[in-house]
Amino acid sequence: MAYIVQKFGGTSIATVDLIKKVALRVKSEVEAGHHVVVVVSAMSGTTNKLVDYVRELSPTYDRAEYDAVVSSGEQVTAGLLAIALQSIGIPARSWFGWQIPIQTNSQYAHATIEHIDGAHLIADLNQGRVAIVSGFQGVSPEGRVTTLGRGGSDTTAVAIAAAINAERCDIFTDVDGIYTADPRYVTSAGRLDHIAYQEMLELSAQGAKVLQRESVEFAMKHQVRLRVLSSLSEAPGTLVTSDDELVLQKKKISGLAHTLNEVKLTLTSLPQSNPQLEIIKELLEAQHIAFDMLHSTLSTCGQHLDCSFTVLATEGERAIDILMKAKNNLDFNDLLRDSDVAKVSVIGSGLQTGHSPSHKLFQTLHMEGIEVQAVSASDIKLSVLVPAKNAGRAVASLHTVYQLDVEDC
Amino acid sequence: MAYIVQKFGGTSIATVDLIKKVALRVKSEVEAGHHVVVVVSAMSGTTNKLVDYVRELSPTYDRAEYDAVVSSGEQVTAGLLAIALQSIGIPARSWFGWQIPIQTNSQYAHATIEHIDGAHLIADLNQGRVAIVSGFQGVSPEGRVTTLGRGGSDTTAVAIAAAINAERCDIFTDVDGIYTADPRYVTSAGRLDHIAYQEMLELSAQGAKVLQRESVEFAMKHQVRLRVLSSLSEAPGTLVTSDDELVLQKKKISGLAHTLNEVKLTLTSLPQSNPQLEIIKELLEAQHIAFDMLHSTLSTCGQHLDCSFTVLATEGERAIDILMKAKNNLDFNDLLRDSDVAKVSVIGSGLQTGHSPSHKLFQTLHMEGIEVQAVSASDIKLSVLVPAKNAGRAVASLHTVYQLDVEDC
Repeated sequence: MAYIVQKFGGTSIATVDLIKKVALRVKSEVEAGHHVVVVVSAMSGTTNKLVDYVRELSPTYDRAEYDAVVSSGEQVTAGLLAIALQSIGIPARSWFGWQIPIQTNSQYAHATIEHIDGAHLIADLNQGRVAIVSGFQGVSPEGRVTTLGRGGSDTTAVAIAAAINAERCDIFTDVDGIYTADPRYVTSAGRLDHIAYQEMLELSAQGAKVLQRESVEFAMKHQVRLRVLSSLSEAPGTLVTSDDELVLQKKKISGLAHTLNEVKLTLTSLPQSNPQLEIIKELLEAQHIAFDMLHSTLSTCGQHLDCSFTVLATEGERAIDILMKAKNNLDFNDLLRDSDVAKVSVIGSGLQTGHSPSHKLFQTLHMEGIEVQAVSASDIKLSVLVPAKNAGRAVASLHTVYQLDVEDC
Repeated sequence: MAYIVQKFGGTSIATVDLIKKVALRVKSEVEAGHHVVVVVSAMSGTTNKLVDYVRELSPTYDRAEYDAVVSSGEQVTAGLLAIALQSIGIPARSWFGWQIPIQTNSQYAHATIEHIDGAHLIADLNQGRVAIVSGFQGVSPEGRVTTLGRGGSDTTAVAIAAAINAERCDIFTDVDGIYTADPRYVTSAGRLDHIAYQEMLELSAQGAKVLQRESVEFAMKHQVRLRVLSSLSEAPGTLVTSDDELVLQKKKISGLAHTLNEVKLTLTSLPQSNPQLEIIKELLEAQHIAFDMLHSTLSTCGQHLDCSFTVLATEGERAIDILMKAKNNLDFNDLLRDSDVAKVSVIGSGLQTGHSPSHKLFQTLHMEGIEVQAVSASDIKLSVLVPAKNAGRAVASLHTVYQLDVEDC
């Protein structure tokens, strides 16, 4: 009998009635002859409410206590789903992170899974019980509850799948797969049957919210076959897997992502002499603040440099604090903050080949009259920073240019 | 420096603003030079909502999963109060039952604390941190979360106080102490400055809802000095302690309690020959159904016995089931159920002495025209069963007769 992991997100288990439906779905997998581990998120809305409580009490909250508070929602849904399964004749029990245990590091609020001992779970599964695991949570070396960052239940599911050597890991969510672009912005966006880990990773990193980035990294590292599908339909969804499995895949550009949740910070009038970009980089990295699009331009007077980069909007205040404390050392004049920006990214292995897709990108945006404020690139990703108000138009026009519209498929 | 335990109930921490107020109260205790452990309930309403979810999924829910679900509310408030304290400069951390650990037996949903290792808490307290403990929860020998029954946070507080040898245990609630009767029924009820464990135990057992009965038993067994006081006022509250401390106490009758949540069951026309009361007692005890006021009377024809007793209304159906299954053996005619009863209890060490307080009781009720349907007594308690509609009048008139009215104090 194969081991299967199924993860259900907050909208799939938002009410008692939905939990009953999920139980029926799990039951059918059990009756198909599988050992099933179910990973659950909190009921949708629960975690946001808890985060609001924490922020209301203290904007500079202790992250270990934040984790103590926000991990509770997944505890509730795990117990409820176990009861729902039992009530339809399927033996089940709930498992919290510390009970398995899911061992993480001590980076509270954004912990990384270090080890999962699958032995207890496997023993229980082999006795014919479904294991319901609280997603998003683990336990630190100090014996305290940690959380894996928003969307972390995806990572829990993948890590459990790796630990028990599961045949596949199904991520049930409120969309029926991975799309070539956000369908709310691009009506002609189409669902992908397959996507390579590396491409999915870039989509997640660049704003696609379907899967937490860490979960894709983990799946790639441990070769876990991920399937993204809807809990509300029977559609087959999108398989996220290795390139080897995707020999039939013809598309060179897999999709577009965009995000509005970054801010651009600009330090003005830095001296040209010093390695300012290096210093900024080190300052941010020392505080674990992720940044992108770090670059410098000659200031208008031609004498000094302006340095810009982007960070998550939620990290904006912290980044400004850090830079202001280093004002004398960096010797800048002003620190500007621009929230009115969007990052638009093109993702696909085709960027590695000679189709000059980057030329296409700049040409398209130029023709649309959209200003490109900054650029960053990897082997399979090209991101540009544009004014927020132009994000939708940029994504839609690029979707057409890269022949991703459904009628082109 | 002395160790102090403070417990805050759900109405005291029902909102973020109330949690901030509790933090200030704890801060003043820390600044007075004490090591403080705070035990918290869930925000009021939270546990009821979770219980509703469970019952909606399955009326015959798995109690271990019930505990997994309903224990989450105390996790939230512990983390939030830790953050609130930190934000006003008081070092604090949250502790869940399994982290301390609070070891219980495996009677899920109504577990009993078997052992608390205070070493981790004490080490943390001695480093100058306030310990915030999630009430109501523990961990079973199997490593699963247990709960102590509704109101169990009181017991958590007392057990922690015993484990760390605390100077006292303050129970903050929405009333400002123990009253001579329920103030909603008896406007002249007065607050007691002191009460003996044994008397408090009877008050709790007979319907006073201020303290969970198990918490008083635990306090008596371990000689923990309990104080019941309001989180909303500065009044000194009521001290619950041993008789030895109460040498100055003059009152012989401490208070009155009443409860409307029992039903009277009557088996009619039993043969006089058999030890019917013994058999009924054994049947109920075998199923762990607590009963009171078991007695028999000659039936009107003078040939047979009628046997009556009371049980909690929630246990009524179970008790009826058990008796109906034993109908042939017991040889009764009919089984009558009367929900329209109230138990009124007089509690105090004065019942042991020669003031004939029981005479006073029957005389008073007779003069008030209130029918006494049954009686039960212990050294320090005298309970009578009266028609539910007379409960308020019975309590008020007895309160006056026993000179408990505030103007008499």
